[in-house]
Amino acid sequence: MTSRYVGIDLGGTFIKGMAISPSGETLASGSRPTSRQGVDAVVADMISLARSLGEGGPIAGIGVAVPGVLDMAAGEVLFLPNVAGDWRGRRAARELGEALGAPAWLMNDVRAATFAEMHFGAGRGYKDFVMIAVGTGVGGGIVSAGRLLLGSAGHAGEVGHNALDAQGPDCSCGGWGCVEAMASGKALSVQGRELVEAGGAPGLRALVEGDVARITPATIARAAAAGDDGARSLVRDTGFRLGILIGNLALLLNPRRVIVGGGIAQAGAMLFDRIAECLEHRVGWYLRYAPIDVVPAALGEESGALGATAWARDRAVAA
Amino acid sequence: MTSRYVGIDLGGTFIKGMAISPSGETLASGSRPTSRQGVDAVVADMISLARSLGEGGPIAGIGVAVPGVLDMAAGEVLFLPNVAGDWRGRRAARELGEALGAPAWLMNDVRAATFAEMHFGAGRGYKDFVMIAVGTGVGGGIVSAGRLLLGSAGHAGEVGHNALDAQGPDCSCGGWGCVEAMASGKALSVQGRELVEAGGAPGLRALVEGDVARITPATIARAAAAGDDGARSLVRDTGFRLGILIGNLALLLNPRRVIVGGGIAQAGAMLFDRIAECLEHRVGWYLRYAPIDVVPAALGEESGALGATAWARDRAVAA
Repeated sequence: MTSRYVGIDLGGTFIKGMAISPSGETLASGSRPTSRQGVDAVVADMISLARSLGEGGPIAGIGVAVPGVLDMAAGEVLFLPNVAGDWRGRRAARELGEALGAPAWLMNDVRAATFAEMHFGAGRGYKDFVMIAVGTGVGGGIVSAGRLLLGSAGHAGEVGHNALDAQGPDCSCGGWGCVEAMASGKALSVQGRELVEAGGAPGLRALVEGDVARITPATIARAAAAGDDGARSLVRDTGFRLGILIGNLALLLNPRRVIVGGGIAQAGAMLFDRIAECLEHRVGWYLRYAPIDVVPAALGEESGALGATAWARDRAVAA
Repeated sequence: MTSRYVGIDLGGTFIKGMAISPSGETLASGSRPTSRQGVDAVVADMISLARSLGEGGPIAGIGVAVPGVLDMAAGEVLFLPNVAGDWRGRRAARELGEALGAPAWLMNDVRAATFAEMHFGAGRGYKDFVMIAVGTGVGGGIVSAGRLLLGSAGHAGEVGHNALDAQGPDCSCGGWGCVEAMASGKALSVQGRELVEAGGAPGLRALVEGDVARITPATIARAAAAGDDGARSLVRDTGFRLGILIGNLALLLNPRRVIVGGGIAQAGAMLFDRIAECLEHRVGWYLRYAPIDVVPAALGEESGALGATAWARDRAVAA
């Protein structure tokens, strides 16, 4: 029986899991809906999912990815705004490790996705790259000199509250003009609703049959692809703002590649062309010396679980 | 005869140099005015300074810091806007190394200053810190997991053109709303002149005897310290904008400390208190989980040469 590494990715809607062999082959995957019954129920489901993925071989390590702020050294959750219940202080990885008799490590979900792209996706062969994941919120991860950059406590990569505009709209974090307030899936949905209510995107309005509650980044992207000028402007504005962020990251970190993940990346050339225009406009002089390419993520929604798995393998080998 | 490491820091006004022993003791230092006679003359002066600092022992390595963009691997200057002459393609470090018969390495001056703070200054004992140097322009350096972060070609740390304000003033780089356009020594001088011309800073006007060409960050800081409300506002606005930048860096890199160097740091509490207010306002929620301290640089104008020296030692030992 080959030993295996298990990764569990806790999301607001689903818990996803994966198991890989020491050489990185996928051995199993699975998911559970995220319970609304509180933290204990969610942790029990994470354990049960990990146990089922671990069947067939001894578990050599478990990676647990969560969508929030955590203390990596202590393995302790600090702030998890998008999962029901009070997670503060919960040592989620240790609980899985004790239940399954294996070493376990806690990490942020976008750092896990970055680690997955590094080993299995669009970051392969790149020693210096940055990932930004544009979902409801916006997260990030940095790989520098071939290593995942963690910072003093594992928080490095929090691009969502990078200031884009000193006069920008208020953000849920208490700040203003943040990436999340201006270029996230949530912000795009709000912008889409406002535009439809103002009569500015007839194609989008028709697509959602007048129900603005159905406006999402996906419906906006579809309306834009179908030729709705208003929806197209929204996607392009998001691209321009992501371009400002990517320009900041290029200057600050000198990556060779920037990977854009999350649903927004599916908008394709409409988005990426506008990102490129913004980059040329803002930091073209610099990119002549330090070129980057900006590409969509290669991995899909399983990247958090896959990255947590690879992280467990990495940590277990280092230990 | 003890071997020694020599560092040369090329600035727009002076070439500075230093020599240290393998254990880091300062053995010699010196400077030359930066010649206006062209690149060859400047390089000859750099060689002559390095030679004089190398007297008394074999030179084990030479670090050469320059104020611009360069290719570290090739040791080649790419863009040096603040030193007269056409430096493009010049392998300045190699020329010094060949003249003096020692291995030599080229680096950016603020990365050198960051390396100096890491070994001898306010970064000692910190595995994760960021430096920003606010002079005429604004540069930066990043230390992560105890190592100077270089990025794919050694450019990492270019904070000067981080976007602060999507509607901010044009920047000399071709972009707009950049840190350099809004919170540099150059920007502060422009703001001071405009304010005095509009009658807004009588104390500052008196200090420079009505001659707006004499308005500099230093005179603004002096007028502010003497109680001129207009000058005080300018310093505080600069602090707030630096706070936005530092907030971005804290989120992105999770440093434990941020070091502020350059003349502006001498404004003291007036500046640092405003930085702290901005940080609390913008990213207070995050800093509860990931605290930072923001401190002035410990080293002065010799930090570029000292850092280049230490870099040569580091590279020579690694080689």
